[in-house]
Amino acid sequence: MITTEHTSKQFDAELEAVRARVLQMGGLVENQIRLAVEALTSGDLDLMNRVVADDHRVNAMEVEIDETCGQIIARRQPAAGDLRMVMTVIKTITDLERIGDEAAKIARMAKLLAQRERLNLPRYNEIKHAADITLDMLRKSLDAFARLDLQTAAQVVRQDELVDEEFRAIMRYLITFMMEDPRTISTSLEILFVAKAIERIGDHAQNMSEYVIYMVKGRDVRHVTVEEIEREAASS
Amino acid sequence: MITTEHTSKQFDAELEAVRARVLQMGGLVENQIRLAVEALTSGDLDLMNRVVADDHRVNAMEVEIDETCGQIIARRQPAAGDLRMVMTVIKTITDLERIGDEAAKIARMAKLLAQRERLNLPRYNEIKHAADITLDMLRKSLDAFARLDLQTAAQVVRQDELVDEEFRAIMRYLITFMMEDPRTISTSLEILFVAKAIERIGDHAQNMSEYVIYMVKGRDVRHVTVEEIEREAASS
Repeated sequence: MITTEHTSKQFDAELEAVRARVLQMGGLVENQIRLAVEALTSGDLDLMNRVVADDHRVNAMEVEIDETCGQIIARRQPAAGDLRMVMTVIKTITDLERIGDEAAKIARMAKLLAQRERLNLPRYNEIKHAADITLDMLRKSLDAFARLDLQTAAQVVRQDELVDEEFRAIMRYLITFMMEDPRTISTSLEILFVAKAIERIGDHAQNMSEYVIYMVKGRDVRHVTVEEIEREAASS
Repeated sequence: MITTEHTSKQFDAELEAVRARVLQMGGLVENQIRLAVEALTSGDLDLMNRVVADDHRVNAMEVEIDETCGQIIARRQPAAGDLRMVMTVIKTITDLERIGDEAAKIARMAKLLAQRERLNLPRYNEIKHAADITLDMLRKSLDAFARLDLQTAAQVVRQDELVDEEFRAIMRYLITFMMEDPRTISTSLEILFVAKAIERIGDHAQNMSEYVIYMVKGRDVRHVTVEEIEREAASS
Protein backbone atom coordinates (compact mmCIF):
# COMPACT_ATOMS: atom_id res chain seq x y z
CA MET A 1 0.00 0.00 0.00
CA ILE A 2 1.15 3.47 -0.92
CA THR A 3 -0.18 6.58 0.84
CA THR A 4 -3.90 7.24 0.79
CA GLU A 5 -3.38 10.44 -1.15
CA HIS A 6 -1.46 8.66 -3.87
CA THR A 7 -4.06 5.90 -4.03
CA SER A 8 -6.76 8.50 -4.41
CA LYS A 9 -4.88 10.24 -7.24
CA GLN A 10 -4.47 6.90 -8.94
CA PHE A 11 -8.15 6.28 -8.49
CA ASP A 12 -8.99 9.71 -9.93
CA ALA A 13 -6.83 8.87 -12.92
CA GLU A 14 -8.64 5.55 -13.38
CA LEU A 15 -12.04 7.23 -13.27
CA GLU A 16 -10.83 9.89 -15.68
CA ALA A 17 -9.54 7.19 -18.06
CA VAL A 18 -12.85 5.35 -18.05
CA ARG A 19 -14.74 8.59 -18.70
CA ALA A 20 -12.44 9.36 -21.62
CA ARG A 21 -13.05 5.87 -22.99
CA VAL A 22 -16.84 6.41 -22.83
CA LEU A 23 -16.43 9.63 -24.80
CA GLN A 24 -14.31 7.77 -27.35
CA MET A 25 -16.98 5.11 -27.65
CA GLY A 26 -19.54 7.90 -28.05
CA GLY A 27 -17.47 9.46 -30.85
CA LEU A 28 -17.28 6.12 -32.64
CA VAL A 29 -21.04 5.58 -32.34
CA GLU A 30 -21.75 9.14 -33.51
CA ASN A 31 -19.61 8.48 -36.57
CA GLN A 32 -21.44 5.21 -37.25
CA ILE A 33 -24.79 7.05 -37.36
CA ARG A 34 -23.39 9.79 -39.56
CA LEU A 35 -21.92 7.28 -42.02
CA ALA A 36 -25.06 5.10 -42.03
CA VAL A 37 -27.25 8.08 -42.97
CA GLU A 38 -24.70 9.24 -45.55
CA ALA A 39 -24.67 5.72 -47.05
CA LEU A 40 -28.47 5.71 -47.15
CA THR A 41 -28.77 9.04 -48.94
CA SER A 42 -25.84 8.51 -51.33
CA GLY A 43 -26.44 4.80 -52.04
CA ASP A 44 -22.73 4.14 -51.38
CA LEU A 45 -22.52 0.35 -50.95
CA ASP A 46 -18.95 0.32 -49.64
CA LEU A 47 -19.94 2.72 -46.90
CA MET A 48 -22.95 0.55 -45.94
CA ASN A 49 -20.70 -2.51 -45.64
CA ARG A 50 -18.17 -0.55 -43.61
CA VAL A 51 -20.78 0.56 -41.06
CA VAL A 52 -22.08 -3.01 -40.64
CA ALA A 53 -18.54 -4.38 -40.36
CA ASP A 54 -17.46 -1.74 -37.82
CA ASP A 55 -20.28 -2.50 -35.38
CA HIS A 56 -18.03 -5.08 -33.68
CA ARG A 57 -15.70 -2.23 -32.66
CA VAL A 58 -18.54 -0.62 -30.71
CA ASN A 59 -19.41 -3.97 -29.11
CA ALA A 60 -15.79 -4.60 -28.12
CA MET A 61 -15.60 -1.19 -26.45
CA GLU A 62 -18.72 -1.95 -24.42
CA VAL A 63 -17.29 -5.23 -23.14
CA GLU A 64 -13.94 -3.61 -22.35
CA ILE A 65 -15.39 -0.61 -20.47
CA ASP A 66 -17.76 -2.91 -18.60
CA GLU A 67 -14.80 -4.99 -17.42
CA THR A 68 -12.91 -1.89 -16.38
CA CYS A 69 -15.91 -0.75 -14.32
CA GLY A 70 -16.07 -4.17 -12.65
CA GLN A 71 -12.38 -3.92 -11.75
CA ILE A 72 -12.80 -0.40 -10.38
CA ILE A 73 -15.69 -1.51 -8.17
CA ALA A 74 -13.78 -4.57 -6.92
CA ARG A 75 -10.46 -2.84 -6.28
CA ARG A 76 -11.47 0.73 -5.40
CA GLN A 77 -14.76 0.19 -3.61
CA PRO A 78 -16.15 3.52 -4.78
CA ALA A 79 -18.81 5.28 -2.71
CA ALA A 80 -21.23 8.19 -3.17
CA GLY A 81 -20.43 10.31 -6.24
CA ASP A 82 -17.71 7.97 -7.51
CA LEU A 83 -20.03 5.00 -7.33
CA ARG A 84 -22.78 6.93 -9.11
CA MET A 85 -20.26 7.77 -11.82
CA VAL A 86 -19.29 4.12 -12.32
CA MET A 87 -22.94 3.05 -12.38
CA THR A 88 -23.68 5.83 -14.88
CA VAL A 89 -20.88 4.57 -17.12
CA ILE A 90 -22.21 0.99 -16.96
CA LYS A 91 -25.64 2.17 -18.05
CA THR A 92 -24.40 4.69 -20.62
CA ILE A 93 -22.34 2.16 -22.55
CA THR A 94 -25.35 -0.17 -22.83
CA ASP A 95 -27.23 2.63 -24.57
CA LEU A 96 -24.24 3.52 -26.73
CA GLU A 97 -23.93 -0.10 -27.81
CA ARG A 98 -27.61 -0.19 -28.75
CA ILE A 99 -27.25 3.06 -30.70
CA GLY A 100 -24.45 1.28 -32.57
CA ASP A 101 -26.87 -1.56 -33.34
CA GLU A 102 -29.38 0.94 -34.73
CA ALA A 103 -26.72 2.51 -36.95
CA ALA A 104 -25.87 -0.95 -38.33
CA LYS A 105 -29.59 -1.56 -38.87
CA ILE A 106 -29.85 1.67 -40.87
CA ALA A 107 -26.90 0.57 -43.01
CA ARG A 108 -28.52 -2.83 -43.62
CA MET A 109 -31.82 -1.17 -44.58
CA ALA A 110 -29.86 1.14 -46.89
CA LYS A 111 -28.51 -1.96 -48.67
CA LEU A 112 -32.01 -3.34 -49.20
CA LEU A 113 -33.23 0.05 -50.42
CA ALA A 114 -30.30 0.45 -52.81
CA GLN A 115 -31.22 -2.83 -54.49
CA ARG A 116 -34.78 -1.77 -55.24
CA GLU A 117 -36.13 -0.08 -58.34
CA ARG A 118 -36.40 3.65 -57.86
CA LEU A 119 -40.21 3.87 -57.68
CA ASN A 120 -40.46 7.60 -57.06
CA LEU A 121 -38.63 7.15 -53.80
CA PRO A 122 -38.84 10.05 -51.40
CA ARG A 123 -35.48 11.74 -51.16
CA TYR A 124 -34.81 11.12 -47.49
CA ASN A 125 -34.93 14.82 -46.56
CA GLU A 126 -37.14 14.13 -43.57
CA ILE A 127 -35.01 11.15 -42.53
CA LYS A 128 -31.88 13.27 -42.72
CA HIS A 129 -33.53 16.00 -40.68
CA ALA A 130 -34.60 13.57 -37.94
CA ALA A 131 -31.13 12.00 -37.93
CA ASP A 132 -29.56 15.45 -37.52
CA ILE A 133 -31.65 16.08 -34.41
CA THR A 134 -30.70 12.74 -32.86
CA LEU A 135 -27.02 13.31 -33.68
CA ASP A 136 -27.28 16.64 -31.91
CA MET A 137 -28.93 14.90 -28.94
CA LEU A 138 -26.17 12.29 -28.78
CA ARG A 139 -23.44 14.94 -28.92
CA LYS A 140 -25.15 16.96 -26.22
CA SER A 141 -25.58 13.87 -24.01
CA LEU A 142 -21.87 13.13 -24.28
CA ASP A 143 -21.04 16.78 -23.57
CA ALA A 144 -23.36 16.76 -20.57
CA PHE A 145 -21.63 13.59 -19.36
CA ALA A 146 -18.16 15.06 -19.88
CA ARG A 147 -18.89 18.42 -18.25
CA LEU A 148 -21.56 17.27 -15.76
CA ASP A 149 -23.81 19.84 -17.39
CA LEU A 150 -27.40 19.52 -16.20
CA GLN A 151 -28.89 22.19 -18.45
CA THR A 152 -27.62 20.45 -21.56
CA ALA A 153 -28.91 17.12 -20.27
CA ALA A 154 -32.36 18.63 -19.69
CA GLN A 155 -32.35 20.06 -23.24
CA VAL A 156 -31.81 16.57 -24.65
CA VAL A 157 -34.81 15.22 -22.78
CA ARG A 158 -36.91 18.02 -24.25
CA GLN A 159 -35.52 17.41 -27.77
CA ASP A 160 -36.70 13.81 -27.71
CA GLU A 161 -40.28 15.05 -28.03
CA LEU A 162 -39.23 16.71 -31.29
CA VAL A 163 -37.81 13.44 -32.64
CA ASP A 164 -41.00 11.58 -31.77
CA GLU A 165 -42.97 14.27 -33.62
CA GLU A 166 -40.66 13.93 -36.66
CA PHE A 167 -41.18 10.18 -36.62
CA ARG A 168 -44.95 10.56 -36.64
CA ALA A 169 -44.69 13.05 -39.54
CA ILE A 170 -42.55 10.62 -41.55
CA MET A 171 -45.05 7.86 -40.87
CA ARG A 172 -48.01 9.98 -42.02
CA TYR A 173 -46.08 10.91 -45.14
CA LEU A 174 -45.21 7.28 -45.90
CA ILE A 175 -48.84 6.23 -45.41
CA THR A 176 -49.94 8.75 -48.04
CA PHE A 177 -47.17 7.54 -50.30
CA MET A 178 -48.20 3.88 -49.93
CA MET A 179 -51.88 4.61 -50.45
CA GLU A 180 -51.17 6.51 -53.66
CA ASP A 181 -49.04 3.71 -55.04
CA PRO A 182 -49.28 0.33 -53.29
CA ARG A 183 -46.25 -0.91 -55.25
CA THR A 184 -44.15 1.26 -52.92
CA ILE A 185 -45.33 -0.54 -49.76
CA SER A 186 -42.25 -2.75 -49.22
CA THR A 187 -39.90 0.12 -49.88
CA SER A 188 -41.87 2.46 -47.64
CA LEU A 189 -41.74 -0.04 -44.78
CA GLU A 190 -37.96 -0.21 -45.07
CA ILE A 191 -37.83 3.59 -44.87
CA LEU A 192 -40.19 3.44 -41.91
CA PHE A 193 -37.78 1.06 -40.13
CA VAL A 194 -34.96 3.51 -40.78
CA ALA A 195 -37.09 6.24 -39.21
CA LYS A 196 -37.85 3.92 -36.27
CA ALA A 197 -34.12 3.26 -35.79
CA ILE A 198 -33.51 7.02 -35.67
CA GLU A 199 -36.33 7.48 -33.17
CA ARG A 200 -34.75 4.82 -30.96
CA ILE A 201 -31.38 6.57 -31.13
CA GLY A 202 -33.18 9.60 -29.72
CA ASP A 203 -34.58 7.47 -26.90
CA HIS A 204 -31.12 6.15 -26.03
CA ALA A 205 -29.63 9.67 -26.04
CA GLN A 206 -32.44 10.70 -23.70
CA ASN A 207 -31.61 7.79 -21.36
CA MET A 208 -27.98 8.88 -21.32
CA SER A 209 -28.92 12.44 -20.37
CA GLU A 210 -31.14 11.17 -17.59
CA TYR A 211 -28.21 9.18 -16.19
CA VAL A 212 -26.14 12.39 -16.16
CA ILE A 213 -28.78 14.12 -14.06
CA TYR A 214 -28.81 11.10 -11.74
CA MET A 215 -25.02 11.16 -11.52
CA VAL A 216 -24.85 14.84 -10.64
CA LYS A 217 -27.90 15.19 -8.44
CA GLY A 218 -28.09 11.69 -7.04
CA ARG A 219 -31.73 11.65 -8.04
CA ASP A 220 -33.20 9.15 -10.43
CA VAL A 221 -35.17 11.08 -13.05
CA ARG A 222 -35.84 8.29 -15.49
CA HIS A 223 -39.52 8.14 -14.85
CA VAL A 224 -40.54 11.72 -14.14
CA THR A 225 -41.88 14.42 -16.49
CA VAL A 226 -39.78 16.71 -18.66
CA GLU A 227 -40.92 19.67 -16.56
CA GLU A 228 -39.62 18.07 -13.37
CA ILE A 229 -36.31 17.32 -15.05
CA GLU A 230 -36.01 20.93 -16.15
CA ARG A 231 -36.74 22.12 -12.60
CA GLU A 232 -34.17 19.65 -11.27
CA ALA A 233 -31.56 20.95 -13.73
CA ALA A 234 -32.35 24.59 -12.96
CA SER A 235 -31.96 24.06 -9.20
CA SER A 236 -28.27 23.21 -9.49
CA MET B 1 -18.95 -4.88 13.72
CA ILE B 2 -20.32 -8.34 14.29
CA THR B 3 -18.34 -11.45 13.34
CA THR B 4 -17.28 -11.92 9.74
CA GLU B 5 -19.41 -15.01 9.46
CA HIS B 6 -22.51 -13.16 10.53
CA THR B 7 -21.71 -10.29 8.20
CA SER B 8 -21.34 -12.74 5.39
CA LYS B 9 -24.68 -14.39 6.20
CA GLN B 10 -26.28 -10.97 6.27
CA PHE B 11 -24.72 -10.23 2.92
CA ASP B 12 -26.00 -13.53 1.50
CA ALA B 13 -29.46 -12.61 2.70
CA GLU B 14 -29.21 -9.21 1.02
CA LEU B 15 -28.14 -10.75 -2.26
CA GLU B 16 -30.91 -13.30 -1.98
CA ALA B 17 -33.45 -10.54 -1.32
CA VAL B 18 -32.37 -8.56 -4.35
CA ARG B 19 -32.55 -11.66 -6.54
CA ALA B 20 -36.06 -12.38 -5.26
CA ARG B 21 -37.02 -8.79 -6.05
CA VAL B 22 -35.75 -9.17 -9.64
CA LEU B 23 -37.89 -12.29 -10.05
CA GLN B 24 -40.88 -10.39 -8.69
CA MET B 25 -40.26 -7.60 -11.17
CA GLY B 26 -39.97 -10.24 -13.89
CA GLY B 27 -43.31 -11.73 -12.85
CA LEU B 28 -44.95 -8.30 -13.01
CA VAL B 29 -43.51 -7.63 -16.46
CA GLU B 30 -44.55 -11.08 -17.69
CA ASN B 31 -48.08 -10.34 -16.52
CA GLN B 32 -48.04 -6.96 -18.29
CA ILE B 33 -47.21 -8.64 -21.61
CA ARG B 34 -49.84 -11.32 -21.11
CA LEU B 35 -52.52 -8.74 -20.29
CA ALA B 36 -51.50 -6.44 -23.16
CA VAL B 37 -51.84 -9.25 -25.70
CA GLU B 38 -55.11 -10.37 -24.11
CA ALA B 39 -56.41 -6.79 -24.32
CA LEU B 40 -55.37 -6.62 -27.97
CA THR B 41 -57.11 -9.81 -29.00
CA SER B 42 -60.24 -9.28 -26.89
CA GLY B 43 -60.60 -5.52 -27.47
CA ASP B 44 -61.07 -5.05 -23.70
CA LEU B 45 -60.55 -1.30 -23.16
CA ASP B 46 -60.37 -1.49 -19.35
CA LEU B 47 -57.57 -4.00 -19.60
CA MET B 48 -55.67 -1.75 -22.04
CA ASN B 49 -55.94 1.17 -19.65
CA ARG B 50 -54.84 -0.99 -16.74
CA VAL B 51 -51.68 -2.14 -18.53
CA VAL B 52 -50.74 1.45 -19.43
CA ALA B 53 -51.49 2.65 -15.90
CA ASP B 54 -49.50 -0.18 -14.28
CA ASP B 55 -46.30 0.58 -16.18
CA HIS B 56 -45.26 2.96 -13.39
CA ARG B 57 -45.08 -0.03 -11.01
CA VAL B 58 -42.45 -1.62 -13.24
CA ASN B 59 -40.53 1.67 -13.38
CA ALA B 60 -40.66 2.07 -9.61
CA MET B 61 -39.25 -1.42 -9.11
CA GLU B 62 -36.36 -0.65 -11.45
CA VAL B 63 -35.45 2.49 -9.51
CA GLU B 64 -35.76 0.68 -6.19
CA ILE B 65 -33.65 -2.35 -7.16
CA ASP B 66 -31.07 -0.06 -8.74
CA GLU B 67 -30.74 1.83 -5.45
CA THR B 68 -30.46 -1.41 -3.49
CA CYS B 69 -27.64 -2.55 -5.79
CA GLY B 70 -25.84 0.77 -5.27
CA GLN B 71 -26.13 0.32 -1.49
CA ILE B 72 -24.84 -3.24 -1.68
CA ILE B 73 -21.83 -2.13 -3.71
CA ALA B 74 -21.09 0.75 -1.35
CA ARG B 75 -21.54 -1.16 1.91
CA ARG B 76 -20.55 -4.72 1.02
CA GLN B 77 -17.85 -4.15 -1.56
CA PRO B 78 -18.67 -7.34 -3.41
CA ALA B 79 -15.98 -9.08 -5.43
CA ALA B 80 -15.79 -11.86 -8.03
CA GLY B 81 -19.04 -13.82 -8.30
CA ASP B 82 -20.98 -11.55 -5.94
CA LEU B 83 -19.98 -8.49 -7.95
CA ARG B 84 -20.92 -10.19 -11.20
CA MET B 85 -24.30 -11.00 -9.67
CA VAL B 86 -24.91 -7.38 -8.70
CA MET B 87 -23.83 -6.15 -12.14
CA THR B 88 -26.10 -8.74 -13.74
CA VAL B 89 -29.02 -7.48 -11.67
CA ILE B 90 -28.32 -3.86 -12.69
CA LYS B 91 -28.38 -4.83 -16.36
CA THR B 92 -31.29 -7.25 -16.08
CA ILE B 93 -33.65 -4.70 -14.55
CA THR B 94 -32.91 -2.24 -17.37
CA ASP B 95 -34.10 -4.86 -19.86
CA LEU B 96 -37.11 -5.74 -17.70
CA GLU B 97 -38.08 -2.08 -17.52
CA ARG B 98 -37.86 -1.79 -21.32
CA ILE B 99 -39.96 -4.93 -21.73
CA GLY B 100 -42.52 -3.17 -19.53
CA ASP B 101 -42.40 -0.19 -21.91
CA GLU B 102 -43.06 -2.49 -24.86
CA ALA B 103 -46.06 -4.06 -23.06
CA ALA B 104 -47.48 -0.56 -22.48
CA LYS B 105 -46.84 0.23 -26.16
CA ILE B 106 -48.80 -2.87 -27.19
CA ALA B 107 -51.68 -1.77 -24.95
CA ARG B 108 -51.64 1.72 -26.49
CA MET B 109 -51.63 0.26 -30.02
CA ALA B 110 -54.50 -2.00 -28.97
CA LYS B 111 -56.47 1.13 -28.04
CA LEU B 112 -55.87 2.68 -31.45
CA LEU B 113 -56.80 -0.58 -33.16
CA ALA B 114 -59.97 -0.99 -31.09
CA GLN B 115 -61.17 2.42 -32.30
CA ARG B 116 -60.84 1.54 -35.98
CA GLU B 117 -63.47 0.09 -38.27
CA ARG B 118 -63.06 -3.64 -38.61
CA LEU B 119 -61.78 -3.68 -42.21
CA ASN B 120 -61.25 -7.42 -42.49
CA LEU B 121 -58.68 -7.24 -39.75
CA PRO B 122 -56.44 -10.27 -39.41
CA ARG B 123 -57.29 -12.12 -36.23
CA TYR B 124 -53.97 -11.72 -34.46
CA ASN B 125 -53.21 -15.45 -34.49
CA GLU B 126 -49.67 -14.85 -35.66
CA ILE B 127 -49.21 -12.03 -33.16
CA LYS B 128 -50.40 -14.27 -30.35
CA HIS B 129 -48.09 -17.03 -31.46
CA ALA B 130 -45.05 -14.69 -31.52
CA ALA B 131 -46.04 -13.29 -28.11
CA ASP B 132 -46.25 -16.82 -26.69
CA ILE B 133 -42.69 -17.52 -27.80
CA THR B 134 -41.35 -14.31 -26.22
CA LEU B 135 -43.28 -15.01 -23.00
CA ASP B 136 -41.66 -18.42 -22.90
CA MET B 137 -38.26 -16.77 -23.49
CA LEU B 138 -38.85 -14.31 -20.66
CA ARG B 139 -39.91 -17.05 -18.23
CA LYS B 140 -36.89 -19.15 -19.18
CA SER B 141 -34.55 -16.17 -18.76
CA LEU B 142 -35.90 -15.58 -15.27
CA ASP B 143 -35.59 -19.30 -14.46
CA ALA B 144 -32.05 -19.34 -15.78
CA PHE B 145 -31.29 -16.32 -13.58
CA ALA B 146 -32.92 -17.93 -10.51
CA ARG B 147 -31.26 -21.32 -10.93
CA LEU B 148 -28.03 -20.20 -12.65
CA ASP B 149 -29.01 -22.56 -15.43
CA LEU B 150 -26.79 -22.16 -18.47
CA GLN B 151 -28.57 -24.64 -20.71
CA THR B 152 -31.86 -22.78 -20.34
CA ALA B 153 -30.10 -19.48 -20.99
CA ALA B 154 -28.58 -20.88 -24.19
CA GLN B 155 -32.01 -22.10 -25.34
CA VAL B 156 -33.38 -18.55 -25.04
CA VAL B 157 -30.63 -17.19 -27.26
CA ARG B 158 -31.52 -19.82 -29.86
CA GLN B 159 -35.25 -19.06 -29.56
CA ASP B 160 -34.69 -15.43 -30.46
CA GLU B 161 -33.98 -16.51 -34.04
CA LEU B 162 -37.47 -18.00 -34.11
CA VAL B 163 -39.04 -14.73 -32.97
CA ASP B 164 -37.17 -12.79 -35.65
CA GLU B 165 -38.45 -15.29 -38.23
CA GLU B 166 -42.02 -14.88 -36.92
CA PHE B 167 -41.67 -11.12 -37.19
CA ARG B 168 -40.57 -11.34 -40.81
CA ALA B 169 -43.51 -13.66 -41.57
CA ILE B 170 -45.98 -11.22 -40.00
CA MET B 171 -44.45 -8.40 -42.02
CA ARG B 172 -44.74 -10.32 -45.31
CA TYR B 173 -48.33 -11.17 -44.47
CA LEU B 174 -49.17 -7.54 -43.64
CA ILE B 175 -47.56 -6.35 -46.88
CA THR B 176 -49.85 -8.68 -48.88
CA PHE B 177 -52.79 -7.47 -46.85
CA MET B 178 -51.98 -3.80 -47.50
CA MET B 179 -51.40 -4.34 -51.21
CA GLU B 180 -54.74 -6.08 -51.60
CA ASP B 181 -56.59 -3.30 -49.83
CA PRO B 182 -54.71 0.00 -49.35
CA ARG B 183 -57.44 1.20 -46.96
CA THR B 184 -55.94 -1.19 -44.39
CA ILE B 185 -52.50 0.50 -44.47
CA SER B 186 -52.82 2.54 -41.25
CA THR B 187 -54.27 -0.40 -39.36
CA SER B 188 -51.65 -2.76 -40.70
CA LEU B 189 -48.87 -0.44 -39.58
CA GLU B 190 -50.26 -0.43 -36.06
CA ILE B 191 -50.28 -4.22 -36.09
CA LEU B 192 -46.73 -4.12 -37.45
CA PHE B 193 -45.67 -1.97 -34.47
CA VAL B 194 -47.23 -4.49 -32.12
CA ALA B 195 -45.20 -7.21 -33.84
CA LYS B 196 -42.10 -5.03 -33.57
CA ALA B 197 -42.72 -4.56 -29.83
CA ILE B 198 -42.95 -8.34 -29.42
CA GLU B 199 -39.74 -8.82 -31.38
CA ARG B 200 -38.00 -6.36 -29.07
CA ILE B 201 -39.26 -8.22 -26.01
CA GLY B 202 -37.50 -11.27 -27.45
CA ASP B 203 -34.29 -9.24 -27.83
CA HIS B 204 -34.47 -8.11 -24.20
CA ALA B 205 -35.07 -11.69 -22.98
CA GLN B 206 -32.04 -12.73 -25.01
CA ASN B 207 -29.94 -10.00 -23.36
CA MET B 208 -31.06 -11.25 -19.95
CA SER B 209 -30.01 -14.80 -20.74
CA GLU B 210 -26.63 -13.61 -21.96
CA TYR B 211 -26.09 -11.81 -18.64
CA VAL B 212 -26.83 -15.12 -16.83
CA ILE B 213 -24.10 -16.84 -18.82
CA TYR B 214 -21.76 -13.96 -17.99
CA MET B 215 -22.70 -14.20 -14.31
CA VAL B 216 -22.06 -17.93 -14.10
CA LYS B 217 -19.06 -18.28 -16.37
CA GLY B 218 -17.52 -14.86 -15.93
CA ARG B 219 -17.38 -14.61 -19.69
CA ASP B 220 -19.11 -11.92 -21.68
CA VAL B 221 -21.08 -13.60 -24.44
CA ARG B 222 -23.08 -10.67 -25.64
CA HIS B 223 -21.38 -10.40 -28.98
CA VAL B 224 -20.55 -13.97 -29.92
CA THR B 225 -22.47 -16.46 -32.07
CA VAL B 226 -25.29 -18.71 -30.84
CA GLU B 227 -23.05 -21.74 -31.46
CA GLU B 228 -20.34 -20.37 -29.19
CA ILE B 229 -22.92 -19.65 -26.48
CA GLU B 230 -24.20 -23.22 -26.72
CA ARG B 231 -20.64 -24.57 -26.43
CA GLU B 232 -20.06 -22.31 -23.44
CA ALA B 233 -23.24 -23.56 -21.76
CA ALA B 234 -22.41 -27.21 -22.50
CA SER B 235 -18.93 -26.91 -20.97
CA SER B 236 -20.29 -26.14 -17.52
